Amino acid sequence: MTIRPMIWDGRILRMLDQRVLPTQESWLELKSSADVVDAIKTMAVRGAPAIGVAAAYGMALAALHGEDKDKAGAKLAASRPTAVNLFWAIDRIKSMPTWEFETVLAEAKAIEAEDLAMNHAIGRHGAELIGHGWSILTVCNTGSLATAGHGTAFGVIHTAHDDGKQIHVYSCETRPRQQGLRLTAYELLKEGIPFHSIADGAAASLMRAGKLDCVIAGADRIAANGDAANKIGTYSLAVLARHHGIPFFIAAPSSTFDLSLASGDEIPIEERSSSELTHIEGVQVAPDRTPVYNPAFDVTPGDLIDAIITETKVFSRPYAF
Amino acid sequence: MTIRPMIWDGRILRMLDQRVLPTQESWLELKSSADVVDAIKTMAVRGAPAIGVAAAYGMALAALHGEDKDKAGAKLAASRPTAVNLFWAIDRIKSMPTWEFETVLAEAKAIEAEDLAMNHAIGRHGAELIGHGWSILTVCNTGSLATAGHGTAFGVIHTAHDDGKQIHVYSCETRPRQQGLRLTAYELLKEGIPFHSIADGAAASLMRAGKLDCVIAGADRIAANGDAANKIGTYSLAVLARHHGIPFFIAAPSSTFDLSLASGDEIPIEERSSSELTHIEGVQVAPDRTPVYNPAFDVTPGDLIDAIITETKVFSRPYAF
Repeated sequence: MTIRPMIWDGRILRMLDQRVLPTQESWLELKSSADVVDAIKTMAVRGAPAIGVAAAYGMALAALHGEDKDKAGAKLAASRPTAVNLFWAIDRIKSMPTWEFETVLAEAKAIEAEDLAMNHAIGRHGAELIGHGWSILTVCNTGSLATAGHGTAFGVIHTAHDDGKQIHVYSCETRPRQQGLRLTAYELLKEGIPFHSIADGAAASLMRAGKLDCVIAGADRIAANGDAANKIGTYSLAVLARHHGIPFFIAAPSSTFDLSLASGDEIPIEERSSSELTHIEGVQVAPDRTPVYNPAFDVTPGDLIDAIITETKVFSRPYAF
Repeated sequence: MTIRPMIWDGRILRMLDQRVLPTQESWLELKSSADVVDAIKTMAVRGAPAIGVAAAYGMALAALHGEDKDKAGAKLAASRPTAVNLFWAIDRIKSMPTWEFETVLAEAKAIEAEDLAMNHAIGRHGAELIGHGWSILTVCNTGSLATAGHGTAFGVIHTAHDDGKQIHVYSCETRPRQQGLRLTAYELLKEGIPFHSIADGAAASLMRAGKLDCVIAGADRIAANGDAANKIGTYSLAVLARHHGIPFFIAAPSSTFDLSLASGDEIPIEERSSSELTHIEGVQVAPDRTPVYNPAFDVTPGDLIDAIITETKVFSRPYAF
């Protein structure tokens, strides 16, 4: 079973609609770059690497229909203003000497294949840190759905499972958006990897009960001293892991490093809408006018991270990339 | 503004249905001890002290309708296995020399009035630990809704606010059942206490940012060495508070002490239905057949608790009650 968030199919991009997962498996048929812009904007696709691949195919659709290269690139780039992979993929295609469809399509396919290969390399490096029979805690979704396939932090779990290591996963729900409960659970079921979903608050008691052997998380941005920004709740797990003497790993492609930042203090933390906490699937769960503090990310200091796993190598403390 | 979770009304117990708060204020009419058992089981009422009061009124309803005292007591006692207040209230009524309705009812009313007075005493003792302008993190709901009124851990917040200490509260959502987001937010709004609701995973980053001065939580059961069982996620906050040098307080009535238990290792941890995590307001958010580990409580070791606030006094480490 191989999960892929999107599949190029002749003259259209088929995309698994992540807005309706896990209760429905619905494939969108994206026929134009405008369709891809819409899919990114509405989060039918999410996860920085997956968004980059989608944008590359969006450029291929633009070339197919003879759209203006710069206009199509600008519209795709505006679809998710904070996604670095998005700009990177669009720029890579824009910088090609030709706007001929077959060539642009080949480049989009190359971007996708490179991401997939990178994730397998991350998985291979990371799996060497995972013992037989280990119980592994993870957070958010860093799997096939967030990438071209296989995943980053999830890719380590993926490879360890494929290696027959008899691992067991505990998957944090990851409020407010529940990517762990919705998407990681979906992937774990599809891949046949034994697991339990847990509320975010239950991680500490699992550690105290001796039920966890390591924690593995992804990263959105890593500073020069190893400080790593990731989904809100990640820092909490790192502190808890240290308290219980459990190794805490970050797995991410080396494109995640931002060595222009001396430390994580320089990483801006996006605050998102209160409705992410107060409403679930459109259902209101908090009182009217509840004030909410909803940071999207937190920063885990490098000294709480036992290893940073990339496609080229595994880094350990003290970090010097 | 005084919030009360239940009101005795002649021959029935009116109960604010906490399952539909905060979006609806609906009052149940409980006419028999079986109705009370059902209300406790389905968590229309929750919070150990409120459950104790409800059970006492359940015994009054049993006496009113001529039920067998021991049978009624056994059914009420089985409605929630971890709530020590439940057993205590039932035993207190069972040990009375008469099973005459008016006398049993008077005893139930006494239990309720004593709880309210006790919470004011807890609030008074605890507020002495709270500085002017402090920012206080709390978890779950320990307020008027969880007790006969005023609250336990929330009672400390309540009293500190009434004292004009200009406090600010951060209230953890408390997945899976979201008592913080639903009920504590409801009470904070009603009482006019400044606050923000947060996802459980966001607590650590608030601490790292220096935005918290203390954590205060309730307890369902406290062992002889100070180990305290409380809502899942509490232990996590205690570890995080210690890591960040922030005081961590437990506030609970002394009836919460179970000195027959040498340590928290002897406290049984109730595991609840997976649907608490996978469904919210009946809406499925996880894939079909997602395996879930859903412990209702965790145990915070006494050595992570800086003070245990009761109605008689404030205990500090090392604990000897």
